Amino acid sequence: MSVLTERLDKHSIRDWFADLQKNICSEISQADGGADFIFDVWERPEGGGGCTRILQNGNILEKAGVGFTAASGILSPKAVASMVGNTLASQSHEFFATGVSIVMHPRSPMVPIIHMNVRYFELTDGIWWFGGGIDLTPHYVIKEDAVYFHQALKNVCDAFDASYYAKFKAWADDYFFITHRNETRGIGGIFFDQLKADESHSKEQIFEFVKAVGNAFAPTYAHILKKNANLPYSEVEKEWQSIRRGRYVEFNLVLDRGTKFGLETNGRTESILMSMPPMAKWGYNLQPKEGTPEFASSLLFQKGINWV
Amino acid sequence: MSVLTERLDKHSIRDWFADLQKNICSEISQADGGADFIFDVWERPEGGGGCTRILQNGNILEKAGVGFTAASGILSPKAVASMVGNTLASQSHEFFATGVSIVMHPRSPMVPIIHMNVRYFELTDGIWWFGGGIDLTPHYVIKEDAVYFHQALKNVCDAFDASYYAKFKAWADDYFFITHRNETRGIGGIFFDQLKADESHSKEQIFEFVKAVGNAFAPTYAHILKKNANLPYSEVEKEWQSIRRGRYVEFNLVLDRGTKFGLETNGRTESILMSMPPMAKWGYNLQPKEGTPEFASSLLFQKGINWV
Repeated sequence: MSVLTERLDKHSIRDWFADLQKNICSEISQADGGADFIFDVWERPEGGGGCTRILQNGNILEKAGVGFTAASGILSPKAVASMVGNTLASQSHEFFATGVSIVMHPRSPMVPIIHMNVRYFELTDGIWWFGGGIDLTPHYVIKEDAVYFHQALKNVCDAFDASYYAKFKAWADDYFFITHRNETRGIGGIFFDQLKADESHSKEQIFEFVKAVGNAFAPTYAHILKKNANLPYSEVEKEWQSIRRGRYVEFNLVLDRGTKFGLETNGRTESILMSMPPMAKWGYNLQPKEGTPEFASSLLFQKGINWV
Repeated sequence: MSVLTERLDKHSIRDWFADLQKNICSEISQADGGADFIFDVWERPEGGGGCTRILQNGNILEKAGVGFTAASGILSPKAVASMVGNTLASQSHEFFATGVSIVMHPRSPMVPIIHMNVRYFELTDGIWWFGGGIDLTPHYVIKEDAVYFHQALKNVCDAFDASYYAKFKAWADDYFFITHRNETRGIGGIFFDQLKADESHSKEQIFEFVKAVGNAFAPTYAHILKKNANLPYSEVEKEWQSIRRGRYVEFNLVLDRGTKFGLETNGRTESILMSMPPMAKWGYNLQPKEGTPEFASSLLFQKGINWV
């Protein structure tokens, strides 16, 4: 183990994530201009805890949650098996998990919902990995924004590994897919998991990549926020936003692995479900009419669209 | 096998459920007085199909769905094992499933949400069972209504077996429990599954019980609908209704076995998710203030309350 690797221990990763949470809240609150994040510090009875920061009723954002967690404890052999396969599953393991999770719901239907997660996981015996992702969920797909968003993510990826963007973009298409609706949640982004050191990437390099993803969040979203916040809209667009928010709820409660894992393992419910939109609607068999902007957007909630 | 048992085949059970759906829609539409049920007949590619009836924007009901299904096909050994244990699981089985499912969301927060399901399941080799249940989800718990509702269900149960109500009421408390909120969905009702013939109950008798449950739905709910439809309410009560509807969404998407099974097995999504409320809200860490009617109701969303 190199001196560098020893310096990059779980506590310095945790501290960096804690700072990231604060920095993002400060930048997003400034971009919104209408409200600050309040915060709740909470403890996990089994070990560790977190800090949940929430902005509600801002100028642009109706509800935004930025969560930081650093949890530790014991994983059962079964849980170990489900995470790393059966090789280590004959015994319980101590674990340490830390990360930042974000979901922001704007008031205007012309501004997209955004989600980001960056995380680090460690077991005893020196096993560790990073994971994360950012994805954008516009109610109305504006091509210029989709290109801007994917280009920003591609730039982050390309600085570290020329293969990352294509791989992680396809992974996001697969992960953020609402099976029972046969549609993606939005226009995707990047998703990655179990990122470990190999011959071409040290732990430090992977962490630098994860930091770059985290640092890209606020400027990228702030740009789209400010660009679209003053676009006009009417009740028609608000209605469509409510329907799309319903799909967001369906993804998060039915399919999102983090949400399911959190709810099943007695996580802090209010911190997990800060991802819920402030309001959502469901009708029976609602289909946008051909020729409408809603119909045009719905055709773009599909896998495999290359924006850059 | 007796002559009677031979007469009670899957087709006559299916036909009775199809009639039940029509009768309930007719009675509820009359009680509402403001809208009729529209319907969609649909086919299941793998065999069978159903009819989904929906009422929207009625006088009292904002969104009500009554679904009838009769599906047939092949169950994998794995699916057989998960349903009936490993004894039959060495081979695939033909199955037949039929039933009626109902969720009704009223406009007024003073009128409760209601759910009912009655179902029959059959495998080859003469294996069959009935299941079902009714539960009530008031936004505001009105004691008189809770007593009326549970007494009506107890009357239905007592006519068949003195042990049913206590057993099925406790089962509903356990089933309609939102684990991650540590609260019940509403005030419960009855829930039963895998009801099979035994020394004290023939197949005919069990079907008579299931028919009695089905027949009790419309008059019981119509009574509560009419009684409360004109109670006054303000934005405060509407807000609480939206929050409670959010909890209803959480139960259905995270925990309800029928919803999960349907979405995972490529069921007809619009028919499965007709249970979603027309609109729901989520805030961060919303807790009703002590001394309010909302707080009083929240204390009653717990298991083990004996209403009769």
